[in-house]
Amino acid sequence: MYNIALLGAGRIGQVHAANIAAHPLSRLSIVVDPQEGIARQLAEAYGASVRSLEDALSSSDIDAIVIASATSTHADLIERGIRAGKAVFCEKPVDLSISRVNATLEAIKGQENRLFVAFNRRFDPAVAELKRRLDAGVIGDLELVTVVSKDPGALPIDYIKVSGGMFRDMTIHDFDMARFILGEEPVRVTALASTLTDPAIKAEGDIDTASVTLQTASGKIAVITNSRRASFGYDQRVEAHGSLGTLRTENVPKTMLVQEREDGVTREKPLFFFLERYAESYAEEWKEFVRVLKGEVAPAPSGEDGRKALLLAEAAYQSLETGRTIAL
Amino acid sequence: MYNIALLGAGRIGQVHAANIAAHPLSRLSIVVDPQEGIARQLAEAYGASVRSLEDALSSSDIDAIVIASATSTHADLIERGIRAGKAVFCEKPVDLSISRVNATLEAIKGQENRLFVAFNRRFDPAVAELKRRLDAGVIGDLELVTVVSKDPGALPIDYIKVSGGMFRDMTIHDFDMARFILGEEPVRVTALASTLTDPAIKAEGDIDTASVTLQTASGKIAVITNSRRASFGYDQRVEAHGSLGTLRTENVPKTMLVQEREDGVTREKPLFFFLERYAESYAEEWKEFVRVLKGEVAPAPSGEDGRKALLLAEAAYQSLETGRTIAL
Amino acid sequence: MYNIALLGAGRIGQVHAANIAAHPLSRLSIVVDPQEGIARQLAEAYGASVRSLEDALSSSDIDAIVIASATSTHADLIERGIRAGKAVFCEKPVDLSISRVNATLEAIKGQENRLFVAFNRRFDPAVAELKRRLDAGVIGDLELVTVVSKDPGALPIDYIKVSGGMFRDMTIHDFDMARFILGEEPVRVTALASTLTDPAIKAEGDIDTASVTLQTASGKIAVITNSRRASFGYDQRVEAHGSLGTLRTENVPKTMLVQEREDGVTREKPLFFFLERYAESYAEEWKEFVRVLKGEVAPAPSGEDGRKALLLAEAAYQSLETGRTIAL
Amino acid sequence: MYNIALLGAGRIGQVHAANIAAHPLSRLSIVVDPQEGIARQLAEAYGASVRSLEDALSSSDIDAIVIASATSTHADLIERGIRAGKAVFCEKPVDLSISRVNATLEAIKGQENRLFVAFNRRFDPAVAELKRRLDAGVIGDLELVTVVSKDPGALPIDYIKVSGGMFRDMTIHDFDMARFILGEEPVRVTALASTLTDPAIKAEGDIDTASVTLQTASGKIAVITNSRRASFGYDQRVEAHGSLGTLRTENVPKTMLVQEREDGVTREKPLFFFLERYAESYAEEWKEFVRVLKGEVAPAPSGEDGRKALLLAEAAYQSLETGRTIAL
Repeated sequence: MYNIALLGAGRIGQVHAANIAAHPLSRLSIVVDPQEGIARQLAEAYGASVRSLEDALSSSDIDAIVIASATSTHADLIERGIRAGKAVFCEKPVDLSISRVNATLEAIKGQENRLFVAFNRRFDPAVAELKRRLDAGVIGDLELVTVVSKDPGALPIDYIKVSGGMFRDMTIHDFDMARFILGEEPVRVTALASTLTDPAIKAEGDIDTASVTLQTASGKIAVITNSRRASFGYDQRVEAHGSLGTLRTENVPKTMLVQEREDGVTREKPLFFFLERYAESYAEEWKEFVRVLKGEVAPAPSGEDGRKALLLAEAAYQSLETGRTIAL
Repeated sequence: MYNIALLGAGRIGQVHAANIAAHPLSRLSIVVDPQEGIARQLAEAYGASVRSLEDALSSSDIDAIVIASATSTHADLIERGIRAGKAVFCEKPVDLSISRVNATLEAIKGQENRLFVAFNRRFDPAVAELKRRLDAGVIGDLELVTVVSKDPGALPIDYIKVSGGMFRDMTIHDFDMARFILGEEPVRVTALASTLTDPAIKAEGDIDTASVTLQTASGKIAVITNSRRASFGYDQRVEAHGSLGTLRTENVPKTMLVQEREDGVTREKPLFFFLERYAESYAEEWKEFVRVLKGEVAPAPSGEDGRKALLLAEAAYQSLETGRTIAL
Repeated sequence: MYNIALLGAGRIGQVHAANIAAHPLSRLSIVVDPQEGIARQLAEAYGASVRSLEDALSSSDIDAIVIASATSTHADLIERGIRAGKAVFCEKPVDLSISRVNATLEAIKGQENRLFVAFNRRFDPAVAELKRRLDAGVIGDLELVTVVSKDPGALPIDYIKVSGGMFRDMTIHDFDMARFILGEEPVRVTALASTLTDPAIKAEGDIDTASVTLQTASGKIAVITNSRRASFGYDQRVEAHGSLGTLRTENVPKTMLVQEREDGVTREKPLFFFLERYAESYAEEWKEFVRVLKGEVAPAPSGEDGRKALLLAEAAYQSLETGRTIAL
Repeated sequence: MYNIALLGAGRIGQVHAANIAAHPLSRLSIVVDPQEGIARQLAEAYGASVRSLEDALSSSDIDAIVIASATSTHADLIERGIRAGKAVFCEKPVDLSISRVNATLEAIKGQENRLFVAFNRRFDPAVAELKRRLDAGVIGDLELVTVVSKDPGALPIDYIKVSGGMFRDMTIHDFDMARFILGEEPVRVTALASTLTDPAIKAEGDIDTASVTLQTASGKIAVITNSRRASFGYDQRVEAHGSLGTLRTENVPKTMLVQEREDGVTREKPLFFFLERYAESYAEEWKEFVRVLKGEVAPAPSGEDGRKALLLAEAAYQSLETGRTIAL
């Protein structure tokens, strides 16, 4: 049984808490959160105790920490957790600054095997099955990857302000997805982007509509298409095209109900909210982390995966600024 | 907080235990099962205690019992539970014998509001939404209901032997579904049936392939089609046809993955096993039972719903035997 | 090159004329129709001439007649055509009266191989492919057939009056389809029916909503579900369930356009009108008839197929009247 | 009735011949083709005569010419046709060289309204309906366009050699589609491309796998994804994403047959060959050209549309060569 300290009792922390508790080999022992009320409520629901960060890190019976606090705290907490001998499950991203990410990875050198960076979408059952079949040769040699990723609707502008920009905040998932499916490192990046959904986003200097194209040394191409607003739900589709065919994931409708009337044949919309859409992914990624704790597998995605996704975001911004295809 | 005693710690009992524990207003307090090992294991997982049936019924802090034991015990346990002042959540069916069902309903007369008979499929999110739209007039006046219900594969012959026959064991769900969607009582029943999937079923005098048609006094028609073996998964579809259109539920695929190759465009199969296919239904039906406990709603399905579904099964058998349309 | 005389230049006659003209081995030579205007218009479009029935039958260079005139004329025209040495392509039905059908088949005894009865749905590309795969063993042993057949909307009451009743006019197609898919003769028939869509239909003593169930000697079951009004389009689906799986045809949407908005994911409705929905079937059935003319295949559907479908309609009516399962 | 001279009696010429003949307002009068055999066969089938190009152009009763000959002849034939006072329906492209296209458009200055350039995909019923709804505001303001276009399989290398390269030969359709849907001119183009499907294509210096991204002055983005080999059929999908939702076209399956077995739920593959997939588009584009002949509408796509699509191809090549986003 692995004892877990959860750092951050907000929305995503609550998701992880439930998965920690539901897993037969892990137990939520400690909840750390400056907001005492929500910390206490979460701790009580799972028989955990509310403690300080220092207590959590120095407690000898804690096996791992889960970092679900604000993005700006991630890098520091990773370093402190690893230094304290804990395994670390960190919500994406490691940091919004590539130099800070580099510094953190440098700081934990030799201990990379204790850091798991939680890009949840790799664990979506459809994506995981796509990857299994791809690796098994079901569609032959991979040639083209397409990632469509659109948020259901405009995020609050206060979120946008601290998000690091769309490529670092949202497209980062798609960069990880592209790398995961490609199985090769992109060496060229080109991007075009606009701000179309909300003048407030424009006022922040951010973008909301974009396409980024990646190419690997062997010539495989990945195309990412983004919007901050799909309006009908969370539009999340991945497509792998190979010499023998295609594997692709469709959106997940709320139910399989169909309505047929004079006004059309209407199905239910895709699940709207990311916590609902990726509920299974969060549970599966926790299972994977427990496998890491057991020493059965190396952490994947790793800190290096986190760094490489951020490098692609940096390159995409550079392409926008210079009007050039960026070589990596 | 409602304290629950669970009678029966087998497969379906475990499903109910998880839902009881997950609901913020209910707690699994007591597990009763003659097989001490599985009772203890289940009780421990949820902080409950293993007790005798007598203890459970006489314990003043138990609000409700959940009957998840063998079918032959249901009627007796309903009567004892009601007599002990408990609310009763009973797995379908009340009993396989209509006279026993009648006796039980007679015995609890005046207390019907404390008995909930768990026909889980009404609580499938797609079916529930279909019913909501139907009641809201989305497809106008209802005219035709179609229920396709096929088990994924042959059940063990030892199960078949004690099942009461396909109409009482399996089609009973479809009779309840037809009544639920129709919103009117059938007054005519005609059936044709065969035994095609397994000679062992034939040897037991049971059927495995059938169609039953129902008609209400106002002329609405419901058609049920059954097989004990769909081979590709659990084939569970409902269709309501009205004056303005149709509402229908499609099977639930394992994931939304699509594979396109020279050998065809292939999607994933429907979920195979009923516990997996109807996981959400079981959770939703427990929520409904908690509403019953809170006095917010009358129990539906009720004991009377259990009785009426069984009467339709009896009528279907009578139709097979006499070659007649049976009037109810 | 086969020279064809078309008897009847109405809606369905025009469909056949186009297919006759488009086939490299057939030519529309003569058009016969008491309404001279439409006969002339059709003849001119294809370089044919307008002639009397007598001329058509006595003309030595006419190889075959196509009967596309009013139902009441079919039986007589079949007999005259065969007597005149022509091959006969007859729109369904042979006649609405079973005794008249028997008399006609008696009259052409020994020449059955020259009569093709045009049940067009067998030639629908999806149905034809379903049948090919079924015969190739793709789903193992056939056990259950489901035919859903709903007209898009109410026919004019003047049509209903002379239609012979829904089972003889509309369900007759489904009886043929069931026999075609079953590959065995039904020996039991049971039916329930209502009149729900239009009081005018009720006033005519006709039905508009029904389910008919058939069973063969080996136990295969076929279920037909009908309505005179689907409102959203022509609802035409066939399903064959066997020991290894299922083959089923879905409705044909107008285009493959999908619209995703807050009000749902909406696809286009099924094709509405039978001439549009079955355009390919009509072309394919003409190709089949040319194969009959070339002596490559025996006519299928044959006159006997026409008779057997009508017998099933008669049995369905008898079941309604007697409240019994009818043995054939 | 418009009399038409068809220049080129090959595969695509035969498609146009059938549509010309089927239209009530047009007649195939003359067929011109150096290969006398196929010219004669086609002419006979439709009651036309085989004549020389000079005869066709000087014949006063010819209203329009259809250019379906080799690409290298298009520009010259357009100029001669217009000079002879004919309306011109020209298969795409006008020419593979932008300077030649410019020269031709210069040569016919003032007569642009007589030249129709046949980009057939605009006339696909699903695409046309998408455009109608987009223009009607069904998805609000357009933001993103996605065009997936993959040939079913490798073309003969002899074709590749004279094709002008993938962007000019195949992507040209997608450039036209993107412009058609965008309703605005792209002002920026970036591209990445590879050669992955066939070493013979590489040996020719051509590409077979690519992504091209376009951006308009208002910020709308269009993403084109291409491959020369989809293996499972002709992969042709268009998606328009706007402020209120999405309109997208799915591939067209051969039939609506579904097979459900233990090995998956399998539907039929997309139509494989472009003549089959776009049969309706060719018929619709002919109807549009007849509207042009009647003076009801201006030709669209026009010669200028042909030129602008080619300019986008040129820009895409330039982006590949320079590693820059190209400004137009």
